[in-house]
Amino acid sequence: MSNLFEKLPADLSSEVFENLVDSKDVKIERIISKGHISPESGWYEQDSNEWVMVMQGAAEITFADRPAVNLKAGDYLEIKALQKHKVSWTAPDVETIWLAVHFN
Amino acid sequence: MSNLFEKLPADLSSEVFENLVDSKDVKIERIISKGHISPESGWYEQDSNEWVMVMQGAAEITFADRPAVNLKAGDYLEIKALQKHKVSWTAPDVETIWLAVHFN
Repeated sequence: MSNLFEKLPADLSSEVFENLVDSKDVKIERIISKGHISPESGWYEQDSNEWVMVMQGAAEITFADRPAVNLKAGDYLEIKALQKHKVSWTAPDVETIWLAVHFN
Repeated sequence: MSNLFEKLPADLSSEVFENLVDSKDVKIERIISKGHISPESGWYEQDSNEWVMVMQGAAEITFADRPAVNLKAGDYLEIKALQKHKVSWTAPDVETIWLAVHFN
C-alpha cells in the first residue's frame, strides 16, 4: 500500500511523472507540478483519453475548443483523445499532485 | 468539470456507486460508504483488476491471502483479478469516498 500524498520528489526542476499502474489497457500515473506549465506555443494532442483529477494544489487547463478550467483538490475532468489542451498554470508555491488515468 | 468531494448522496442506507468513466477498457467509479462492510461470509472475487484509493474517511480491507490493510485519505492499492478480499470496516461517522479504477 502507498499514499498518493507521500514521498514527493525532492527535485522538482521539471515535472515528475510516476506510473502507478501500467497495463495493456490503462496507465495510471501521479504527476507532480510546481509552477510548471506547458510550452507557450502548440497544444498537447494525445492518442488516448485521459481522466485527470487534481489531488492537491491548483492548476488551470486551457483548451483550443472550450473555455479554460481552474482545478482545485477533487476537481476532475475527461480530456478526449486528440482534444487540444495545455496546462496553462500550476500553483508556484505548493506541489500540485495530479492523478491521471489514460485509456482508449 | 466535477468535484469528487461534492454532491454526496443524501441516502446512504446502502453504499452508493457512481460511474465517472465507463469505456470499453476501463471503468472509473466513485463509491460512498458510511459504516458499510462486506457480508460476513464469503469473499469478493472480481473478474477484473481494481486500483482503489480512499479519498476521504477510513476503511479496512481484508484479504484471504495477505494481511489486512487500513486505509486513510490518499492510500491506494491494487487488487488483482480473482484476489479474494472484502471491505471489513468503514468509518461509521463520516462518508468514506473511494475512487476505483477497474481494468483488465
